[in-house]
Amino acid sequence: MNWHYRQPVTIHFGNGTITRLKDEIRQTGKKRGILVTSPSFEKNGLAARLVTDSDGTLVTTYSGISPNPDIRECDACIKTIRENACDLVVALGGGSVLDCAKAAALFCTATLPAGDYLDRKIPLPPDRLPLIAIPTTAGTGSEITRVAVLSDHEKGIKTPLDTPAFYPDTALVDPKLTWTVPRHITACTGMDVLCHAIEAYWNIHHQPVCDALAIHAIRLVFRYLETACEEPSNPLAREKMAEASVTAGMAFSLPGTTSAHACSYPLTSHLGIPHGEACGLTIDHFMRINATADTDGRLNELARATGFSDPGNMADAIAELKYRTGLKTGLTRYGLTDTDLHRLVSASLVPNLKNNPVPITAAMLYDLYASLR
Amino acid sequence: MNWHYRQPVTIHFGNGTITRLKDEIRQTGKKRGILVTSPSFEKNGLAARLVTDSDGTLVTTYSGISPNPDIRECDACIKTIRENACDLVVALGGGSVLDCAKAAALFCTATLPAGDYLDRKIPLPPDRLPLIAIPTTAGTGSEITRVAVLSDHEKGIKTPLDTPAFYPDTALVDPKLTWTVPRHITACTGMDVLCHAIEAYWNIHHQPVCDALAIHAIRLVFRYLETACEEPSNPLAREKMAEASVTAGMAFSLPGTTSAHACSYPLTSHLGIPHGEACGLTIDHFMRINATADTDGRLNELARATGFSDPGNMADAIAELKYRTGLKTGLTRYGLTDTDLHRLVSASLVPNLKNNPVPITAAMLYDLYASLR
Repeated sequence: MNWHYRQPVTIHFGNGTITRLKDEIRQTGKKRGILVTSPSFEKNGLAARLVTDSDGTLVTTYSGISPNPDIRECDACIKTIRENACDLVVALGGGSVLDCAKAAALFCTATLPAGDYLDRKIPLPPDRLPLIAIPTTAGTGSEITRVAVLSDHEKGIKTPLDTPAFYPDTALVDPKLTWTVPRHITACTGMDVLCHAIEAYWNIHHQPVCDALAIHAIRLVFRYLETACEEPSNPLAREKMAEASVTAGMAFSLPGTTSAHACSYPLTSHLGIPHGEACGLTIDHFMRINATADTDGRLNELARATGFSDPGNMADAIAELKYRTGLKTGLTRYGLTDTDLHRLVSASLVPNLKNNPVPITAAMLYDLYASLR
Repeated sequence: MNWHYRQPVTIHFGNGTITRLKDEIRQTGKKRGILVTSPSFEKNGLAARLVTDSDGTLVTTYSGISPNPDIRECDACIKTIRENACDLVVALGGGSVLDCAKAAALFCTATLPAGDYLDRKIPLPPDRLPLIAIPTTAGTGSEITRVAVLSDHEKGIKTPLDTPAFYPDTALVDPKLTWTVPRHITACTGMDVLCHAIEAYWNIHHQPVCDALAIHAIRLVFRYLETACEEPSNPLAREKMAEASVTAGMAFSLPGTTSAHACSYPLTSHLGIPHGEACGLTIDHFMRINATADTDGRLNELARATGFSDPGNMADAIAELKYRTGLKTGLTRYGLTDTDLHRLVSASLVPNLKNNPVPITAAMLYDLYASLR
């Protein structure tokens, strides 16, 4: 088997790691940084604290990023970058902020608006501004991946873009920043971690380095996610979920995601279900589907390496984890019509669906969505 | 727990990967490469084939590198680099070649002879020539580490040097190149892989990404090393041992090695025992020593994650693996005197001994060497 591996991001991990930011900025040699964040970190003062601590190297802040960021927010961020002649981007937030900041750091070096790249027909710019990523949830892994997911809400599009230029230079992963994440978001983002790791492993583009990291991350999620939800300030549970997020990010960045992520896009954009919860809705069902054609025994090996007797047993455990952490296990409340189901199906037929080890047809997706109705 | 991770080497893995060399050289934009290798690859024609395939971008070859390379060989290589105005280094060989090539690519950018850096009192140069590493054994991991081990035979010194500048730019790992490695060298280098992974894991500087990769590598060595020794052209066994070598290299590059590697240096330089075999001589004994103070249960977890009931059981399996692959399990044949033992002990008191989770005293080393006599 031939495989490739590259992971150029320098990772600093641990409680208090955020205090390294000033030194990390200094090492870039840049003097005019922009802090890209979400309104919540303006409100709770963390954004202001980072700016104060930066010794004048963070010259402006853009905080207009909302969940599932629209490309217009990315364009507004680029405008702020240009108006302030910024030469460095520091991103502080969850996956939405990190993804939008990655896109802004890249697209600001080109002339076209961000939306022009969304259909993936023109090549992405090759270079970006120096970029330091600080995740505030344990979920996205965006701080160490080459992926950014962007939306065009007007057109009803949500799509992942992928380029080596999206790897940040440095990730500062400070588990303490996740202590204030509410229970439901902790559950959603933790389920995203689990899906990243499982989908990296069963991906048709799987490879051994990513396999090893995926197994590591999966074991941590089963061991610590529920505690992180129940006890938000439990240092060990928060640290281990942050560790799971980083290692799952390293696991899926190269192989990409598969079926559960493919389905999550319309579940989020049509029904408003948060990303991680949307991924979790189908992951155990795809595990049962994929187990029916586990000819090389890889899925069985995954189940055993992560403490289960077989993939069916592991799928049961995922369903139970969703239930115990308060995540949706079905779509009953939405009163979906047949037309709705067909819309979900056609919007799920995106490229990463093809990474699934078992070919997934529209009919299979219809049956799956119908079983959740 | 705070940790850091960086692994900037681009890895291409798989049978036939060596044919990428021309493209990889082209991507560097350099035109005057040197091929650094050992006499055996001059003799079997592989060196000549790479030069022919390089479209003139490999302008010279230095093949004067012997096992446990002396710093004078490094200086001779640097001389060839300068005489030919080379701007790129391609290293083809086992750990000795790769380490010497890494050192030459670095020290050729400075004015002092290589030997001046060996006592680690003056800082290493910051930059090196672009470097592509092609391992021909499954053992060293040098193609993806920030370490180079060099010797000064006149002074009886063998020591590891460590700098981020030693990371090659690209590793081309072609398992097929290992098919011709003789049985005993396969066993020695495979035991080196096992020690890299175990010592990375129990290292006081252990961290989770390296832990996950160490577990992966250990499982592979126990599953495939004996087959690789018995059936040199077994594609799966050779591929999996090459995979183990790369992942173990990624595992130990940052934490470093510990006790078994510390003892290996005098066992090699005083008694002439090959590096991997020398590491293997003490690894199971250090596992029993470290298991006596496994207060956090990590060693027990390692044993269970790699298929054993406890560290004692794992140590037994290592001893059995040495026996079955024809590696030394003692030092009886050397007729060591007490003076010899004391010399071995004092030459083992090197910095990486301090990475061992249990503090190792001179008395403990004496008892260990005496038990092997």
